[in-house]
Amino acid sequence: MKQYIEQNKDRFFEELFSLLRIPSISSESAHKEDMVRCARRLVELLKEAGADRAAVYETTGHPVVFAEKKLDPKAPTILVYGHYDVMPVDPLSLWKSDPFEPEIRNGAIYARGANDDKGQTFMHIKAFEYMVRTGQLRHNIKFILEGEEEMGSEALSKWIKTHKRLLACDIILVSDTTMLHEKIPSINCGMRGICYMEVKVTGPSKDLHSGHYGGGVYNPINTLCKMIDSLIDEEGRITVKGFYDDVVELSRKDRKLLGRAPYDARKYMAGIGVKALTGEKGYTTLERVGIRPCLDVNGIWGGYIGEGSKTVIPSEAHAKISMRLVPNQDAKKIAKLFTKHFKAIAPRGVKVEVEEKHGGDGFLIPISSKAYKAASRAVGEVYGVDPVPSRGGGSIAILAEMQRALHADPLLMGFGLERDFIHSPNESYLVDQLFKGMESIALFYKYF
Amino acid sequence: MKQYIEQNKDRFFEELFSLLRIPSISSESAHKEDMVRCARRLVELLKEAGADRAAVYETTGHPVVFAEKKLDPKAPTILVYGHYDVMPVDPLSLWKSDPFEPEIRNGAIYARGANDDKGQTFMHIKAFEYMVRTGQLRHNIKFILEGEEEMGSEALSKWIKTHKRLLACDIILVSDTTMLHEKIPSINCGMRGICYMEVKVTGPSKDLHSGHYGGGVYNPINTLCKMIDSLIDEEGRITVKGFYDDVVELSRKDRKLLGRAPYDARKYMAGIGVKALTGEKGYTTLERVGIRPCLDVNGIWGGYIGEGSKTVIPSEAHAKISMRLVPNQDAKKIAKLFTKHFKAIAPRGVKVEVEEKHGGDGFLIPISSKAYKAASRAVGEVYGVDPVPSRGGGSIAILAEMQRALHADPLLMGFGLERDFIHSPNESYLVDQLFKGMESIALFYKYF
Repeated sequence: MKQYIEQNKDRFFEELFSLLRIPSISSESAHKEDMVRCARRLVELLKEAGADRAAVYETTGHPVVFAEKKLDPKAPTILVYGHYDVMPVDPLSLWKSDPFEPEIRNGAIYARGANDDKGQTFMHIKAFEYMVRTGQLRHNIKFILEGEEEMGSEALSKWIKTHKRLLACDIILVSDTTMLHEKIPSINCGMRGICYMEVKVTGPSKDLHSGHYGGGVYNPINTLCKMIDSLIDEEGRITVKGFYDDVVELSRKDRKLLGRAPYDARKYMAGIGVKALTGEKGYTTLERVGIRPCLDVNGIWGGYIGEGSKTVIPSEAHAKISMRLVPNQDAKKIAKLFTKHFKAIAPRGVKVEVEEKHGGDGFLIPISSKAYKAASRAVGEVYGVDPVPSRGGGSIAILAEMQRALHADPLLMGFGLERDFIHSPNESYLVDQLFKGMESIALFYKYF
Repeated sequence: MKQYIEQNKDRFFEELFSLLRIPSISSESAHKEDMVRCARRLVELLKEAGADRAAVYETTGHPVVFAEKKLDPKAPTILVYGHYDVMPVDPLSLWKSDPFEPEIRNGAIYARGANDDKGQTFMHIKAFEYMVRTGQLRHNIKFILEGEEEMGSEALSKWIKTHKRLLACDIILVSDTTMLHEKIPSINCGMRGICYMEVKVTGPSKDLHSGHYGGGVYNPINTLCKMIDSLIDEEGRITVKGFYDDVVELSRKDRKLLGRAPYDARKYMAGIGVKALTGEKGYTTLERVGIRPCLDVNGIWGGYIGEGSKTVIPSEAHAKISMRLVPNQDAKKIAKLFTKHFKAIAPRGVKVEVEEKHGGDGFLIPISSKAYKAASRAVGEVYGVDPVPSRGGGSIAILAEMQRALHADPLLMGFGLERDFIHSPNESYLVDQLFKGMESIALFYKYF
């Protein structure tokens, strides 16, 4: 495919940039129309690439895009999953260039979604185009591209229940993850689940003057801080009752295999600009972020947050708190346990509301499977070195659901790198990874 | 003065409303011009009331208004202190009417500043006008009205140093506090000081994906919560090293005297809509908010605080933290102790910055003084019952400084009520209190 990329490079950039220019931020209602625009543009690209049919499907939320090329009913069917929605871009001031006006600097494309997941989804569209136009396609190909991955895939989750036959497949192929390093390729063999909650602590019924009441009442911010602090103990373990009940401890052998992934603490810390790391006692950093659950506050707000100072005891304080789960933990069950626990630890002087924002289970992919082996061979050939099996700490909530609904395993061929800073300002994607990804996917078609 | 009020009521409302309509929010730079407008309007009102001179004076910050009427060099001089700046109005959605379009509902004026401190300052201008126009004035009168009380009085603090002669006086008369109840009048005989800090906790140098790093790094929000939680111990005492060193314990006799103030826990809790109270062990609620120091988080923010969910470990988390101090505690010293302590408790994985926003010492007013006795007699006559001496939990940072610079004691004749909800949405001021305040001040002139 190398030659085909070389010949079509400029067109590829133009097409990808046309997707990146659409600010398809799924969680902000102001961008509702942009979501539709982005879905329509994908349909155009899929049709041009060679799909027999491609269309925007309405859902209960943002639309999904479905496309397919039927070749031979007896041949295996590959379902490509991707998402066209992106994360919010704040704080905008930290971006070196407009997040929705892509720019190539030092061999990387800079834009929101450059990697996650417009860039990685685009690789599949182009690998498919190459296979069709060069007459090499042997499989039936389907695409399902959703617009709510960054906010929990609620609409797709409902939609797949009524479109199981349409989506029927033998393997779910996904590029929405990272590899360990551009020189140490890896393939994900498991991902964590997620349980994302929002909490609200209400103290006095109105904001109070902190001089008149300070020292005598429960301040909801101080109280929220105390409650949050109590959620993780001195050993880095989550204190929510029953949280670890379904966590399966990995065997020493499995931990050893995963431990082969290269890791240099100094480089790791330098990469994110910190002087010390923390986490659950008894586990390495890679284990803490890969095979162990965790709890993080993703956002907190309350009281006066403008410039200057205001002497107020606010009525309310809020936080967004998410837990990463490991395979076998049930996101719904964890949401219930968290809600019960968080209400139980509140002092009588405050009211607590807990809302489940979204959740999804983790999953494992057997490295002995035909699909994993084909992917491993393809990636190995492109990178000149066999890929390492790794465990991703992130979550693609919908994949565990699709696995159950379609009776097909997901396969995670991710070409992102840590340096891409997805979800952060200045998200980027190396052009070299974009092209190597296309090549690897085309070879996967060959070996699968 | 009752009759004079009756005859001039409509004009009084018009004049006060003209002040309330100016959004003089000192801490928001967008309102810089409004500050000047408000100062100019005060000069007009003071001249109309009978001042020989009244002018806007430039300072290093928002302007101050000075006015005076010289009568007899041998007569005592009363300096009226007030402020024309107001608090921010967010959350705006909770206001029942426009904060800057005053409305009278159920006998109260609703507007930002209706009480704090435009309404209370206005009482002094009108009492002064009455004394002048009815030929009863026996004292020299000065007014100093500043525009930065709600943000720490930095500009006035510098200005008084170079204008000591202009401000020379025998007593500093202030209405910027509350009384216990409209039927239980009280006069403040002391106020708390304040030390207002802003802290910033920085973890990773960029926002990180919480799936890829969650469980392995110091999350600045979780860390900030832990640090804040540690600032108050299980007994409700502040853990900052050295914090209580200069706190003078009140005698049993003084605590008993203050304990005479009426207090009903059930009503107190119902008034602010809470089911339980908290605070320092060994003290009553009124002691906790009056004669004991305390620490409150006034604002907190970090990470994603928009709608929906974002799986981020933010780079930074922030909080505004203030401490109320009791007389004899030094605000500058406490700021240093806090800074040192807060940096000391930070784990190695984060960086901490601490900034002092503003501060001021508390002070006491002897109830045996001539001024206190005159005020007590005046208020007693208007309300038909002797006022209780009380201790205000709030802070007027600048008063302790003026006391030192001008060698004159402040006298706090406050006519606000708890129900006024200053600093909150729907701030109000009872018309009855506004008029009784004017009468009390006019009588104070008579008895002082």
